[in-house]
Amino acid sequence: MSYNSFGRVFRFTTWGESHGPALGAVVDGCPPGIALSETDIQPFLDARRPGQSRFTTQRREPDQVRILSGVFDGRTTGTPISLMIENVDQRSKDYSEVAKAYRPGHADYAYDAKYGFRDYRGGGRSSARETAARVAAGAVARQLVSEVTITAWVEAIGGDAIDPANFDAQEIGNNPFFCPDAAAAQRWEKLVDDARKAGSSLGAVVACEATGLPAGWGAPLYAKLDSELAAACMSINAVKGVEIGDGFAAAAASGEANADPMRPGNDGPVFLANHAGGIAGGISTGQPLTLRVAFKPTSSILTPVETVTRDGEATEIATRGRHDPCVGIRGVPVVEAMVALVLADQKLLHRAQCG
Amino acid sequence: MSYNSFGRVFRFTTWGESHGPALGAVVDGCPPGIALSETDIQPFLDARRPGQSRFTTQRREPDQVRILSGVFDGRTTGTPISLMIENVDQRSKDYSEVAKAYRPGHADYAYDAKYGFRDYRGGGRSSARETAARVAAGAVARQLVSEVTITAWVEAIGGDAIDPANFDAQEIGNNPFFCPDAAAAQRWEKLVDDARKAGSSLGAVVACEATGLPAGWGAPLYAKLDSELAAACMSINAVKGVEIGDGFAAAAASGEANADPMRPGNDGPVFLANHAGGIAGGISTGQPLTLRVAFKPTSSILTPVETVTRDGEATEIATRGRHDPCVGIRGVPVVEAMVALVLADQKLLHRAQCG
Amino acid sequence: MSYNSFGRVFRFTTWGESHGPALGAVVDGCPPGIALSETDIQPFLDARRPGQSRFTTQRREPDQVRILSGVFDGRTTGTPISLMIENVDQRSKDYSEVAKAYRPGHADYAYDAKYGFRDYRGGGRSSARETAARVAAGAVARQLVSEVTITAWVEAIGGDAIDPANFDAQEIGNNPFFCPDAAAAQRWEKLVDDARKAGSSLGAVVACEATGLPAGWGAPLYAKLDSELAAACMSINAVKGVEIGDGFAAAAASGEANADPMRPGNDGPVFLANHAGGIAGGISTGQPLTLRVAFKPTSSILTPVETVTRDGEATEIATRGRHDPCVGIRGVPVVEAMVALVLADQKLLHRAQCG
Amino acid sequence: MSYNSFGRVFRFTTWGESHGPALGAVVDGCPPGIALSETDIQPFLDARRPGQSRFTTQRREPDQVRILSGVFDGRTTGTPISLMIENVDQRSKDYSEVAKAYRPGHADYAYDAKYGFRDYRGGGRSSARETAARVAAGAVARQLVSEVTITAWVEAIGGDAIDPANFDAQEIGNNPFFCPDAAAAQRWEKLVDDARKAGSSLGAVVACEATGLPAGWGAPLYAKLDSELAAACMSINAVKGVEIGDGFAAAAASGEANADPMRPGNDGPVFLANHAGGIAGGISTGQPLTLRVAFKPTSSILTPVETVTRDGEATEIATRGRHDPCVGIRGVPVVEAMVALVLADQKLLHRAQCG
Repeated sequence: MSYNSFGRVFRFTTWGESHGPALGAVVDGCPPGIALSETDIQPFLDARRPGQSRFTTQRREPDQVRILSGVFDGRTTGTPISLMIENVDQRSKDYSEVAKAYRPGHADYAYDAKYGFRDYRGGGRSSARETAARVAAGAVARQLVSEVTITAWVEAIGGDAIDPANFDAQEIGNNPFFCPDAAAAQRWEKLVDDARKAGSSLGAVVACEATGLPAGWGAPLYAKLDSELAAACMSINAVKGVEIGDGFAAAAASGEANADPMRPGNDGPVFLANHAGGIAGGISTGQPLTLRVAFKPTSSILTPVETVTRDGEATEIATRGRHDPCVGIRGVPVVEAMVALVLADQKLLHRAQCG
Repeated sequence: MSYNSFGRVFRFTTWGESHGPALGAVVDGCPPGIALSETDIQPFLDARRPGQSRFTTQRREPDQVRILSGVFDGRTTGTPISLMIENVDQRSKDYSEVAKAYRPGHADYAYDAKYGFRDYRGGGRSSARETAARVAAGAVARQLVSEVTITAWVEAIGGDAIDPANFDAQEIGNNPFFCPDAAAAQRWEKLVDDARKAGSSLGAVVACEATGLPAGWGAPLYAKLDSELAAACMSINAVKGVEIGDGFAAAAASGEANADPMRPGNDGPVFLANHAGGIAGGISTGQPLTLRVAFKPTSSILTPVETVTRDGEATEIATRGRHDPCVGIRGVPVVEAMVALVLADQKLLHRAQCG
Repeated sequence: MSYNSFGRVFRFTTWGESHGPALGAVVDGCPPGIALSETDIQPFLDARRPGQSRFTTQRREPDQVRILSGVFDGRTTGTPISLMIENVDQRSKDYSEVAKAYRPGHADYAYDAKYGFRDYRGGGRSSARETAARVAAGAVARQLVSEVTITAWVEAIGGDAIDPANFDAQEIGNNPFFCPDAAAAQRWEKLVDDARKAGSSLGAVVACEATGLPAGWGAPLYAKLDSELAAACMSINAVKGVEIGDGFAAAAASGEANADPMRPGNDGPVFLANHAGGIAGGISTGQPLTLRVAFKPTSSILTPVETVTRDGEATEIATRGRHDPCVGIRGVPVVEAMVALVLADQKLLHRAQCG
Repeated sequence: MSYNSFGRVFRFTTWGESHGPALGAVVDGCPPGIALSETDIQPFLDARRPGQSRFTTQRREPDQVRILSGVFDGRTTGTPISLMIENVDQRSKDYSEVAKAYRPGHADYAYDAKYGFRDYRGGGRSSARETAARVAAGAVARQLVSEVTITAWVEAIGGDAIDPANFDAQEIGNNPFFCPDAAAAQRWEKLVDDARKAGSSLGAVVACEATGLPAGWGAPLYAKLDSELAAACMSINAVKGVEIGDGFAAAAASGEANADPMRPGNDGPVFLANHAGGIAGGISTGQPLTLRVAFKPTSSILTPVETVTRDGEATEIATRGRHDPCVGIRGVPVVEAMVALVLADQKLLHRAQCG
């Protein structure tokens, strides 16, 4: 089924296709009285905006957001906030090949198998262009959880990881890769450029940390904070894995190595380690929330790949046209947005039950 | 907030604590006319049942399930199915230490931070004992998706992985580790035994494959099949990571290496690879569904760990008492159950929208 | 579809059939720290309990509730509260007639048309016996909205209404009809007795008032307080109409006659009338909440009525056996419970969004 | 809380204020392959459109709908359908009085009590202008339940009811009152005109019938067809009561008088009466669905009414400006839309569970 809403109390619904007139989000359940204008949202859209360097798709979209409802005199009213972004650069091109043959790794075949029918222009609803609506909604969420600082970055591209010793949060905004390690950013320039020129693509790992959230947010058992984060991140295009804290590394550890001892502190316990990534029993502990998200390489490559047509004939397809050589890069603001959206919802859920 | 339901059309709600009189699940939205009796459910509970080998907790629970509603003349009626399992072996012991001090890695502190109060007996609601209710509900789901074969196994314990070349599905039931590699099972015997005797614990990776599901199940964008699976698995106690298909390995791959080419087949396309794990665009492709789940080591260890008391005093705690040295092992039937529950829901959702 | 849950943050799910071993409710989302024991619930079940006078069904059920989870040391823990009531007096009788022929006015035919199959023993899931589970859940809700006083009563039976001038809330508990007018109660004794002896049945109007709730509860637009109350009351067996405030009388009034003027008061505005029934724009105004609910006459009557069999043959049916001659009477505690459940949910929803 | 979505599988979310730039709806879960264009929606908006006679508000809105997503090549794709209607005639006027004083009967005070803040221009979110979005969404629902014919009409204005003997469905479109009785329509002309000229207002009863739906739609117990219809209708501005079938009249009837006997027919049972309004046990019986909805008189009247200001001062207010003298009239297409939306959802829910 199509299910385009997320959240339980702070909820959002997105709509729109890659090549339709516009796309947008409706944010419902937002508390009243929160300062909000387009200028609070635009910077996050700008961070995700395509066409800003040669390392992302060359589609040129201004991604200007408009607030159509839910705000009065510069503050949220508590009623639904409708956000709209017009599509400007839907290049009119010949879609006959993509209409006919399924691009491997893309949603083409799966959508046809499900719906018997699809909007094939630029990937339609399954295009990563939809994530602009998430980022806009996420900016509203950030206003609501302003006590939390959410920072994501690219940790590895094509298997080439940053050196944790070089980590510098200030560096993230200094390069087109959201890379906190200046040396790695330099290496990635060549890495991604080579892939781009070769018509190839690369996977990436995005890491995210959220600090400032209190202990106690979360909703055992089936809306656990980690469960909601996993759902949120896995719903992003091209994502194939999610880890909280040490993630898969914890599976190789002993209980002693994985322990997060506590000592008394002024504001509740001080933790001596954070293998858990800030969540225990599905509830925040007050430590930094840490997670990692695996993005597969963009499925659009120039190398011809065997495939089938809608009519079941054998063929080959090479995906020309505009796309990101490493879709994980622009995944950074999207991961941040999804984390913000989950935290906003959990904050309100916690307030509902625990006052 | 407490949120103990899962699913959208095929839904279940679980209840119960480790040391209460009973625990259970209510399954709602199940189609009518499906054959169901306690004997359809019991084998799955038996697989998860504790106390069957020295490698799991020694708590002795018969875990006999009773169907209290929703079944008439051996078939489901379409009304809610109430399943109850009585707790039998809640050992009366002294809980004063655990009531007073927070066990690191456990939900103790987080629950107190959230609720200001907790049932500390055996972990209360945060005990893995709750997963018995999931397994019971999962058995109902299996009846509904009987066209799908769901098989999970332990792929690695404490970092010691099976050899894929040795994979033999028949072997899974032949050892207490749900291990498909006889050689690895033998190694793990000593590995887990050593950990148990040392009062230590080990993490594990559980893998799962589901075959037989058709192309077209899934619900873009925020109830994608992979997103729902991630939420479901991440909601299991001790889980810290979820991968679909190649998962994090895909993040290190190139687009060419990650491609799943297709050729014409008799029943839709035949795929030449399955890096995607059977899901594209959040929708099943008809290939086998593959996923991996990371379980952290049990947080209960005999080595004293620094911690704090409810009153904020420094102390140390060593967790004696009955528990699994490797909680991932008994996670196998739980992962299977969660996958079955997600697939049952997605099957009905697909039918709702696409007839 | 079967959908046996209600509520958004404070949610409950009921299960069970008329002639199964038990029925129950799971209440989820209840705040922690609220005093709760069986003795807080039992009085409400006792008020609804059958067999207490000759004016209700003669089925003898003790309706003893057990709390199976979610309470520790006499207080709610914030985790799901499982409530169970065993069925004791499922009289073993011959159901062959009811299995074969559809009782007009009952859910028999509709259930068969939907599910192709039904538990025909005592009405199965569609029996008003299910309302015991609602009343138990409602008692939990009352603990949460203890600032609100909820009182329901029977306003009319078979068209014979109370005289508002005689209204005396103390009287409600003094007669088997929940009637606040002693004179009417006396008339109804003969009225209901005559119907009972004739094997006939009577409809009733139940009125309900809730005082003490603050202004501001409600959830525009599709979870408005009045919309939720309407859904809640219309979900009760045999209910065919719901009014808020003046209801249908308002449809015959002019704007001047229907106005609720306000004057300044110490605690917000003082209203000079309450045609609106305490709700404006879907949100409580702080005035008393007033509503009325129409119960149809019990469909079980001794007069033979034309009907058809499962096989499509013409036949007649007269419903013998135990049932209420006026099902609206025992609807009183059920309406109160549903109002409490809606208010508990709205209280938490309000807290979520508006702090 | 703000909750602006409705439906479980076929869901819609509305957004927008009376005086914002636009309002709209997002319809999610609609099956793929259904023919849909603006011309399928516009006629229903035109029926509800203001300013078409002197009996409705003189605000002039073209109410042109745009489909922004979810439709490709003239058919729904199964992805969310975004519908937008621009506001054109938001008259710039002086709102200082309404910003300051609470209009009795309006949502002004309740919104302020809830949110501490409101968009007072033209009633903001609580304006009946929002129902345009419902009507647009309802037009999509109608495409999905095209086997059902849904017809609503005004049954009474200000207590002056139609004569059932004069009922002529053809007449409904022939007068500005959606009145099926030509004689009543003539009387109402003077009635409403007098009220309009006097600055007064009138309540109305809207009746609705849906034919062609099969037996078996509905979702016991808490999403019963009647419960959903009650919630849907009670969520419409100014509605204070809902009846299914005989409604409150059934409460005054005996079981014999209220029986709906059945006889064998070619397509399932033939019913000899329809007191139940086509629903038994919350499930459709295949008979015509009948319901009645009570609209209170518009609260905006010229007669000054005592009220209070935001600052708690006593004052009087008379509501000038554009509004409907009888808001129930334009409620007719809104009731039809809500019934269509409920039926579309229930159709898909039924298909989900019962195939």
